[in-house]
Amino acid sequence: MNNWSHITKPTLVISKKRAVNNILQMAQKIKSQNIIFRPHFKTHQSLEVGLWFRELGISKISVSSVDMAQQFVQAAWNDISIVFPFNRREIENLNTFSSLAHINILLEDIDTAQYISENSTAELGVFIKIDCSYQRSGISATDFDAVKSLATEVHSLPNLKLKGLLSHFGNTYAARGEKEVQDIYSNSKQLLINLRHYLKADFPDLMISIGDTPSASLVDDFGEIDEMRPGNFVFYDWMQYQIGSCSLNQIATIVLCPVVAKHPQRNEIVIHGGAVHFSKEKLAHYGAICSISKEFNTNIIDGVYLKSISQEHGIVQCTDDFIEQINIGDLIGVIPIHSCLTANLMKENTQIN
Amino acid sequence: MNNWSHITKPTLVISKKRAVNNILQMAQKIKSQNIIFRPHFKTHQSLEVGLWFRELGISKISVSSVDMAQQFVQAAWNDISIVFPFNRREIENLNTFSSLAHINILLEDIDTAQYISENSTAELGVFIKIDCSYQRSGISATDFDAVKSLATEVHSLPNLKLKGLLSHFGNTYAARGEKEVQDIYSNSKQLLINLRHYLKADFPDLMISIGDTPSASLVDDFGEIDEMRPGNFVFYDWMQYQIGSCSLNQIATIVLCPVVAKHPQRNEIVIHGGAVHFSKEKLAHYGAICSISKEFNTNIIDGVYLKSISQEHGIVQCTDDFIEQINIGDLIGVIPIHSCLTANLMKENTQIN
Repeated sequence: MNNWSHITKPTLVISKKRAVNNILQMAQKIKSQNIIFRPHFKTHQSLEVGLWFRELGISKISVSSVDMAQQFVQAAWNDISIVFPFNRREIENLNTFSSLAHINILLEDIDTAQYISENSTAELGVFIKIDCSYQRSGISATDFDAVKSLATEVHSLPNLKLKGLLSHFGNTYAARGEKEVQDIYSNSKQLLINLRHYLKADFPDLMISIGDTPSASLVDDFGEIDEMRPGNFVFYDWMQYQIGSCSLNQIATIVLCPVVAKHPQRNEIVIHGGAVHFSKEKLAHYGAICSISKEFNTNIIDGVYLKSISQEHGIVQCTDDFIEQINIGDLIGVIPIHSCLTANLMKENTQIN
Repeated sequence: MNNWSHITKPTLVISKKRAVNNILQMAQKIKSQNIIFRPHFKTHQSLEVGLWFRELGISKISVSSVDMAQQFVQAAWNDISIVFPFNRREIENLNTFSSLAHINILLEDIDTAQYISENSTAELGVFIKIDCSYQRSGISATDFDAVKSLATEVHSLPNLKLKGLLSHFGNTYAARGEKEVQDIYSNSKQLLINLRHYLKADFPDLMISIGDTPSASLVDDFGEIDEMRPGNFVFYDWMQYQIGSCSLNQIATIVLCPVVAKHPQRNEIVIHGGAVHFSKEKLAHYGAICSISKEFNTNIIDGVYLKSISQEHGIVQCTDDFIEQINIGDLIGVIPIHSCLTANLMKENTQIN
């Protein structure tokens, strides 16, 4: 890495080279199977990072809120899926920009479908949210009748154009290793295929859209699906590394934090870097510590980790060796547990490398 | 509560009445014991909420970062303690405004003291950070020699004016009930009194500054201390209620979240309200659910709670009764676990009631 000397406070550093490589690899993998690549922009929420995708020919995106959709429409993105169960209270907000782009929304109940149909001022693409066992949101993939009723309703309503079935296999985040992720993927995907088969007579052209980062990273052959929407892969993070979705040298973000105190008697240092920088996401610890060098480098320092965080403080558990070589005033590199939450918090303190 | 109909997305609602009452009570309790009240503004970080303190005659404040100090100096606050181990990399930032206000900083090592003395362009007040067993930062309260060495050094250095000993009894956050908090308080306070006594011959006027919200709320007689710096008390929250620091009707913030999906088969609803609104702070759950009415109302609904959160989604575990009466499109009230982290995330979506 270069030019860290000017960094005075916790700063998210993004390796453009690694992020662009991640985008390239994922785009190639997905497009080579004739699947639409619609990356989720909730991870970075950044117009600049968005341009890296655009320069690689990617023009369809996913976002997780109406606000985020508006931000990217204003930046001339014109094909956006808001992949969150549509919040009907935001229909007026959506109406202010929905005529400027192709907007897809997610629905899972008839009442909301009717409400949106009546109150939208533009035609909206609709995906029906399907739950393939993650149990966060969506109609159960085995509840054929409910899906068919909603599909029939959406199909009949003005302003709504039924596009397909959409699911998020979020349970892959709790998996460890290729095999577990592949099993979740193939079981979940099969449920969607069965559902589409059931609906085929009435709705012959339903797309299937999926796209968690573990599946997108660890499954080779995606099978008969039409669209993939991973987001996290652009930066990856410690959680994805633990799942097995990426190698260490694919992780494209670290947070540089100043060391503000040393407590050798308990092998701890205090850094400026806490819950307002990392969120309180924990996975055995709150972040791995890596060496920082002129090259963007994510060599993990064994036995050293972010042990606890409060609002602004971070306590790093050190080894004897590490605490001896580190000084107050140094910067330390933290690999975030979950890059989406960290990037959201660090929007104003981000540096592209 | 009034006028919720215009709320379209997760919104932090602050009851001004409750917050002002909390400020009034705390100010009265502290000032009646001839103790300086220097509230911590990291909880709200808001110029508007700051004015509520100022209108009650409070002019000395605490903040947790140089950035926050700058924000409040720009809003004409001129007596500010930055109660975080001073990050020497920020000395240039501090120099841009330190001549405009009385700034106190925290030090815990001689090297940083020398560095700041050499590089500061204004005189800074100095508190020595003391650790009374919380083990986050500071020199151990029983390490008399180390404290005396630092005090001697600070006293001798230009640009630094030694003011006193400062501690945060953060271990009270893990306590439950008045007795436990009082025990931590009296043990920790005694350590500071002993330390001051030891230093008295050389430094006769050292102040003692402390101020976690549980102690400030649950201890009646603060004893021989000089300054209190609680912050959290202005809003309180679910954690403080669990500790016993406040009653339910003292909690001055709730987050209103739209209901976007219902899953009666597992008694769950999905709300727009996740980790980017609440942070990932957990205490048995991620938030208590309360009824919302025209009056600011924090009646807890038993058996209903925020069970899990992802970036934008919240899953609320419901009772049979609750799920029956709630509809998609309704707003639901969530009492945050930790109001400091929630207020930090919700800066742009806050409404004063």
